[in-house]
Amino acid sequence: MSQLRKDPILGRWVIIAEDRARRPTDFTPLPEKPSKGICPFCEGNEHMTPKEVYAYRNPESTPDKPGWKIRVVPNKYPALRIEGNIDKRGDGVYDSMAGIGAHEVIIETPKHVVSITELSNEEVADIMKITKERMLDLKKDKRFLYGMLFKNVGAASGASLEHTHSQLIVLPTVPIRVQQEMNGALEFFNYRGRCIFCDIIRQEKDQKERIVYETDRYISIAPYASRFPFEVWMLPKYHISHYEYIDDSDLNEISNCLKTTLKKLESTLEKPPYNFMVHTSPFNTDNVEHYHWHIEITPRLTRIAGFEWGTGFYINPVPPENAAKFLREV
Amino acid sequence: MSQLRKDPILGRWVIIAEDRARRPTDFTPLPEKPSKGICPFCEGNEHMTPKEVYAYRNPESTPDKPGWKIRVVPNKYPALRIEGNIDKRGDGVYDSMAGIGAHEVIIETPKHVVSITELSNEEVADIMKITKERMLDLKKDKRFLYGMLFKNVGAASGASLEHTHSQLIVLPTVPIRVQQEMNGALEFFNYRGRCIFCDIIRQEKDQKERIVYETDRYISIAPYASRFPFEVWMLPKYHISHYEYIDDSDLNEISNCLKTTLKKLESTLEKPPYNFMVHTSPFNTDNVEHYHWHIEITPRLTRIAGFEWGTGFYINPVPPENAAKFLREV
Repeated sequence: MSQLRKDPILGRWVIIAEDRARRPTDFTPLPEKPSKGICPFCEGNEHMTPKEVYAYRNPESTPDKPGWKIRVVPNKYPALRIEGNIDKRGDGVYDSMAGIGAHEVIIETPKHVVSITELSNEEVADIMKITKERMLDLKKDKRFLYGMLFKNVGAASGASLEHTHSQLIVLPTVPIRVQQEMNGALEFFNYRGRCIFCDIIRQEKDQKERIVYETDRYISIAPYASRFPFEVWMLPKYHISHYEYIDDSDLNEISNCLKTTLKKLESTLEKPPYNFMVHTSPFNTDNVEHYHWHIEITPRLTRIAGFEWGTGFYINPVPPENAAKFLREV
Repeated sequence: MSQLRKDPILGRWVIIAEDRARRPTDFTPLPEKPSKGICPFCEGNEHMTPKEVYAYRNPESTPDKPGWKIRVVPNKYPALRIEGNIDKRGDGVYDSMAGIGAHEVIIETPKHVVSITELSNEEVADIMKITKERMLDLKKDKRFLYGMLFKNVGAASGASLEHTHSQLIVLPTVPIRVQQEMNGALEFFNYRGRCIFCDIIRQEKDQKERIVYETDRYISIAPYASRFPFEVWMLPKYHISHYEYIDDSDLNEISNCLKTTLKKLESTLEKPPYNFMVHTSPFNTDNVEHYHWHIEITPRLTRIAGFEWGTGFYINPVPPENAAKFLREV
């Protein structure tokens, strides 16, 4: 069983995944490309993954057999496990808890497709619907406080398989990065009485310099303080705190906005590696006035070096206004 | 001139380096190896770098000519520039300031050597002495609040040249990562009346499980909540808040502890890429009771993916107790 340990200075948690324990010689140079060979996510290879926990499939079909549209399976090498007690402990200045939580993989299509931009709007809408449903299901377990939905695309982003998929990691604690974001947004709300994300959207619509794409109810922008070249955030234009509260009637429009944004990145940067993170409110909150769910998309075009690690500062060689202009015009 | 911009939610600053502005097509895949070709850091190639600001050199030699032991030059592509006013501005919800600061490169030897472990203890002690002197000199400028000394080794760590060198970036603001560390340490100090780093050292010496190496006055440990496989911190065993306050009589011993620690990493992991960051107190503080300077060394053996970016959580497949054991025994 893995263990969660808290850094006593920063309060940041790490997952020490003992099940994955490796010897130093196991660290070969990092792979340049996701591994080839037989794809465990393709239709017909269902036996290569752990047993599915949920799926959208043909009603006549059998679990873990062909006939599905989207499959949700536990990660084969889970960072956290669903069974067990939280078992909080102290040891002098150190604190730990058991590595409980969930680590699921959403296999987004039975076809060997490497980007959701190759799927139809309806297929992408179904992916969002199933991830919403997984969040709603897992948050019923009161041991869990946060669900992090993310996607790694390309080897440089940390992906080990190219077949398009997302991951959902559910945690027994609210992560520090989320807590800092919630605190910052709350501070602004207490001072100004408004959601800072709503204010940002208002200012971006006025200034027009950093808009990448928008639909009636969604908008993609290159954020003012972009950490990375061509970083893009996609936000609902109306106030909504939780990803899992999206109305099903909105899913087609989000899918359009998301696919168009990703297509623009893929065509401007020639299919870059990227990470995709859904930022949403913790499970133990409800309709938060000061927080606004959104997606952060960060292409991996530059390396993070000692300066960034040591300071939390980022050096971005592409002003977001330039990035947005390239992306708008493509 | 580059610009510092503040993320309105997190309060995190980024450097938008407009001087480095590039087109999307300039982002070729990330290089696997630092560039080869003529090395601008080798003796005889002094004309290939900006003019030196400081050096340890033979008294008969001329600046920017051969005859030096260590050279300090401005970065050829500086993230920040020394001239100008801080020019703080607001624009709606956004804040910015001018990209002033310093960005220096410490060329650690005239020989084409790729690791400081190939240098003598005296040579490494001289490197620490010169970086200390640069910190003391730059902190006289009251516009500057923090000096970040770091080293990138190997392409995967962000290094673009292999000839051993460090960088010093001096900032007009205290970085958020440092502020969070100072705040965490202060909270502990206020509660317990002791420096948390001193407490950590005490506990590590008792438990002995995570010690990598120690001398009389310095210690290397695999931190309890290591983010990365084989992460190592080196700390003075006595309380001292600022790197630039190290007594010159200690430099030989630090060099020994540092070189031995790095040699252990190099031999266990076959010369891994790594980042090396000096964590020290801000320039506008003096003999802080709650903070303790140290060096964080993070080998780059795994990729950072969407989960880490979104949460600030890290998944580490190697328990620090195992890492320390491998490193101790090598």
